[in-house]
Amino acid sequence: MTDKTFFNLHDLSQGIQRQLADGLETHIFPGENVMLSIVRIAPDREGEVHSHPEEQWGVLLEGSGVRVQDGQEHAVSVGDFWQTPGGVPHTFRGGPEGALVLDIFSPPRPEYRKAGSGFGD
Amino acid sequence: MTDKTFFNLHDLSQGIQRQLADGLETHIFPGENVMLSIVRIAPDREGEVHSHPEEQWGVLLEGSGVRVQDGQEHAVSVGDFWQTPGGVPHTFRGGPEGALVLDIFSPPRPEYRKAGSGFGD
Repeated sequence: MTDKTFFNLHDLSQGIQRQLADGLETHIFPGENVMLSIVRIAPDREGEVHSHPEEQWGVLLEGSGVRVQDGQEHAVSVGDFWQTPGGVPHTFRGGPEGALVLDIFSPPRPEYRKAGSGFGD
Repeated sequence: MTDKTFFNLHDLSQGIQRQLADGLETHIFPGENVMLSIVRIAPDREGEVHSHPEEQWGVLLEGSGVRVQDGQEHAVSVGDFWQTPGGVPHTFRGGPEGALVLDIFSPPRPEYRKAGSGFGD
């Protein structure tokens, strides 16, 4: 796929690269109203709890882990997906084999429009 | 998962059901700024070409098929994803084993907030 509107989850040459935390790497695809972020989480690694005003959805594509959201822990398996309303504190802890998560932000998070590190808050 | 913000792609009891066309069934999850639609496409079935003002992204989760977009045909495999800007005519044709596609709309499509049939245009 070479068209600029067609991508693949496993093509690490695509998207804007960001290291969210040690063991959490993402490739970011900004649209007009929505932004996709393909997050690779190493085994047993976890980001810091954070929040932002943008609505977020997550889909667990590979592996397993724990979605920490609004002070509660939710064990998740492949195919699980979840909504995180704006302002709700959250993070994700990878399972023993790590995890691949599709995060969806709307509106796009302006902090994620450029390469860098951290959760941008 | 019983929490109303946690779902699974394969739980057919969840979401708002809509028959887009013969052989294309979806379960829709509206958020505030974004709407997810889990579309099951039967082998070799195809929807009608349509468009809408809302931005759309699609992710091929299972199977294979052809994304028809802006008059061009793009063969897609599992893990491929694509952006469809608002107003661009599009449809999807399932491959020989069918397809499971995650569609993402922003803003949410008002036509899809209730159960029904058709593409809503």
